[in-house]
Amino acid sequence: MSDAARTPQERLDTQVSSSEPSLFAKCHKFFAPDGDYARVQAAGLYPYFRPIERNEGTRAIINGREVIMAGSNNYLGLTSDPRVKEAAIEAVRKYGTGCTGSRFLNGTLDLHLELEERLARFMGREACIVFSTGYMTNMGVIQALTSKNDIIFSDKDNHASIVAGTQVSLADTVRYRHNDLDHLRRLLERAQAERPEAGKLIVTDGVFSMSGVIARVPELVELAEEFGAALMLDDAHAVGVIGPGGRGSAAYFGLEHKVHLTVGTFSKSFASLGGFCVGDRDVIEYIRHTSSAHIFSASMPPANVATVLKCLDIIEQEPERLERLWKISDYMREGFRNAGFNVWNSQTPIIPVVIGDMMTCFRFWRELLEEGVFVNAVVPPAVPQGQALMRTSFMATHTDEELDYILEAFYRVGKRLGVIQANGSC
Amino acid sequence: MSDAARTPQERLDTQVSSSEPSLFAKCHKFFAPDGDYARVQAAGLYPYFRPIERNEGTRAIINGREVIMAGSNNYLGLTSDPRVKEAAIEAVRKYGTGCTGSRFLNGTLDLHLELEERLARFMGREACIVFSTGYMTNMGVIQALTSKNDIIFSDKDNHASIVAGTQVSLADTVRYRHNDLDHLRRLLERAQAERPEAGKLIVTDGVFSMSGVIARVPELVELAEEFGAALMLDDAHAVGVIGPGGRGSAAYFGLEHKVHLTVGTFSKSFASLGGFCVGDRDVIEYIRHTSSAHIFSASMPPANVATVLKCLDIIEQEPERLERLWKISDYMREGFRNAGFNVWNSQTPIIPVVIGDMMTCFRFWRELLEEGVFVNAVVPPAVPQGQALMRTSFMATHTDEELDYILEAFYRVGKRLGVIQANGSC
Repeated sequence: MSDAARTPQERLDTQVSSSEPSLFAKCHKFFAPDGDYARVQAAGLYPYFRPIERNEGTRAIINGREVIMAGSNNYLGLTSDPRVKEAAIEAVRKYGTGCTGSRFLNGTLDLHLELEERLARFMGREACIVFSTGYMTNMGVIQALTSKNDIIFSDKDNHASIVAGTQVSLADTVRYRHNDLDHLRRLLERAQAERPEAGKLIVTDGVFSMSGVIARVPELVELAEEFGAALMLDDAHAVGVIGPGGRGSAAYFGLEHKVHLTVGTFSKSFASLGGFCVGDRDVIEYIRHTSSAHIFSASMPPANVATVLKCLDIIEQEPERLERLWKISDYMREGFRNAGFNVWNSQTPIIPVVIGDMMTCFRFWRELLEEGVFVNAVVPPAVPQGQALMRTSFMATHTDEELDYILEAFYRVGKRLGVIQANGSC
Repeated sequence: MSDAARTPQERLDTQVSSSEPSLFAKCHKFFAPDGDYARVQAAGLYPYFRPIERNEGTRAIINGREVIMAGSNNYLGLTSDPRVKEAAIEAVRKYGTGCTGSRFLNGTLDLHLELEERLARFMGREACIVFSTGYMTNMGVIQALTSKNDIIFSDKDNHASIVAGTQVSLADTVRYRHNDLDHLRRLLERAQAERPEAGKLIVTDGVFSMSGVIARVPELVELAEEFGAALMLDDAHAVGVIGPGGRGSAAYFGLEHKVHLTVGTFSKSFASLGGFCVGDRDVIEYIRHTSSAHIFSASMPPANVATVLKCLDIIEQEPERLERLWKISDYMREGFRNAGFNVWNSQTPIIPVVIGDMMTCFRFWRELLEEGVFVNAVVPPAVPQGQALMRTSFMATHTDEELDYILEAFYRVGKRLGVIQANGSC
């Protein structure tokens, strides 16, 4: 936000004249001239909250300049699809811009019911509930289903919205080491011995958002069955991305009917905002009637709902989009590896490219942007120390030329900054 | 959701084939044939999750029939304003249907920055942060600003999203009796004596959502000052509703610069979805860089942002809307009181009409709907036992004829059900 347009007096007039509460001391410290934030900003390397002027699928305009977007979650490229835009526009015309109320009271449109019915069918499950954001979906489902006598078993790399769910829940939470199902088994055994009456929920990302790794669903299903636990998958990066028809991580393993609850989001392949959860009817209806994040939050605006409905049509009618997405993901992984980059064990269109230390990572990010490629810089604590990375993610609508350009840009910057050896190939 | 279109086999195919986890036992119990839910449904009186086919401002279509809407939060009637709809449509055309990323990474448009700048100016404060829902705003602000050495002082009638904020926060929370500032003072004194180093946050609804009562901001400001606490107002039902220019509860008392943080929502007067918080720059920027609900959630879609921007224009250019809203609120309060109804101490367009026991309240709701008036039924625990009520709320765009019709309908149903005496007048 710019202060340039304000006079000094105007700026003064906007400050609170009460004395400063001690609670705010940390805020000033965060931006202190000798802090990390100021240092990275001063070097011109700060990569976050970067405004985008236009975002037309695989191309975006940043600082007045067109770049290739390889850092969105727009997996199927549908945010700018003319059919999707037209559906959103029609919904505004017919229903207005917002519902000004929760689903519980005055904010349920026939359109919301249609979306829930369509998603339940798409996912092959009895019932579906939609929330106004994906974040609130994980939070609201966990909040509603667990209470003080229950135990939540949560992967240490789970998304922040799952963590928020465990925090609002009155249940105890134990975290198991990332994808380490031996560790999970030991925790389940201990819980079984010490608190045999406790209800148990195992919750994990279906696809992990930083690494692109798929959860070990077959073993998770076995553990849930053995210990009488409910299994919940957060398929934010999986529905509309992997599995037959894009039906997510359980479908990827042919285990749709062995997973109790699957959560998805609308802000990725579905080009909108919101989230959903599918499962058996009584469970979903119980969440609907008891989840604070559902009952006390305004419902999805009509345009957001209509966008998802149209994306569902397209996902069902154009399977070639998913096939292209899978093909180019393999192509890019191979390309990065051939160039000498470490891409961990990515299995999806999310491909992490490990850079190393934080400042090199920020420098890599800026040089890539100068080369005309936008990706996301991810640094500790989101990833382990010394494993700062470029999180790349790809879209069905990327052209072969764009993909090769991205690989070439990575190769040039990687050699320049000494991240890869000169003997890699592009 | 309808099962009618599915064969028994299809229904069976959608159920999970794993054994039922004990966690789900409560779900079946909730819908048991002898439970409250089944009883109210069987009587045809269940008033929640009612689908609306069309919602054109003061009129809505429910079950194919047009009714007068007196149960929305659409205070200024802007969800169907042609200028607002056109702004949303233009944003879809220009920017697409969604941002597919968080503000932190790839989801910041210039439009978001414009909205934050405009709202900071509108509220007369240094800086503003927007979140994708109002619920996440309260939650995310409290989450970011408080930590384990702090104490949150929260009004017992605060909105569920504030409660969620206290739950995700590592701080201790003490709840003071609703609007009882003597109680709050005693709790602050005790905290001061026992934990003088603790950071303190006082948080309250600016306007309480069920009663329409305005918080006692002048005394809250004094207490915050005396005890070195930060004061945060949730003005979801106040910004765009009360105070000069619609600037909310602090402005209502001329105390804009004595309140540290004001939160507002976009799903009421602003006809969209989302929320914001204004305050001093470092505090707002600290929230932006540390709040999980901000960093790990997709940003507001372009249409949602453009809707708010256009509503801001209209609020600034057409002050007569707010004047009309205040005038008709007084008129309706007076009308309900003359008819013999108890409307508590409402001071805003939210007017609770007390009915009494829960089943009479549900019956009242259904008979009003049959009379062609939609309001919200609010029952314990949202209100005290025996104080179940019809929550009515009014819009600047309600016509005098519509308002009189609502009063007459309440009068007829009130007499029929014995809620008011025959000697009231309409």
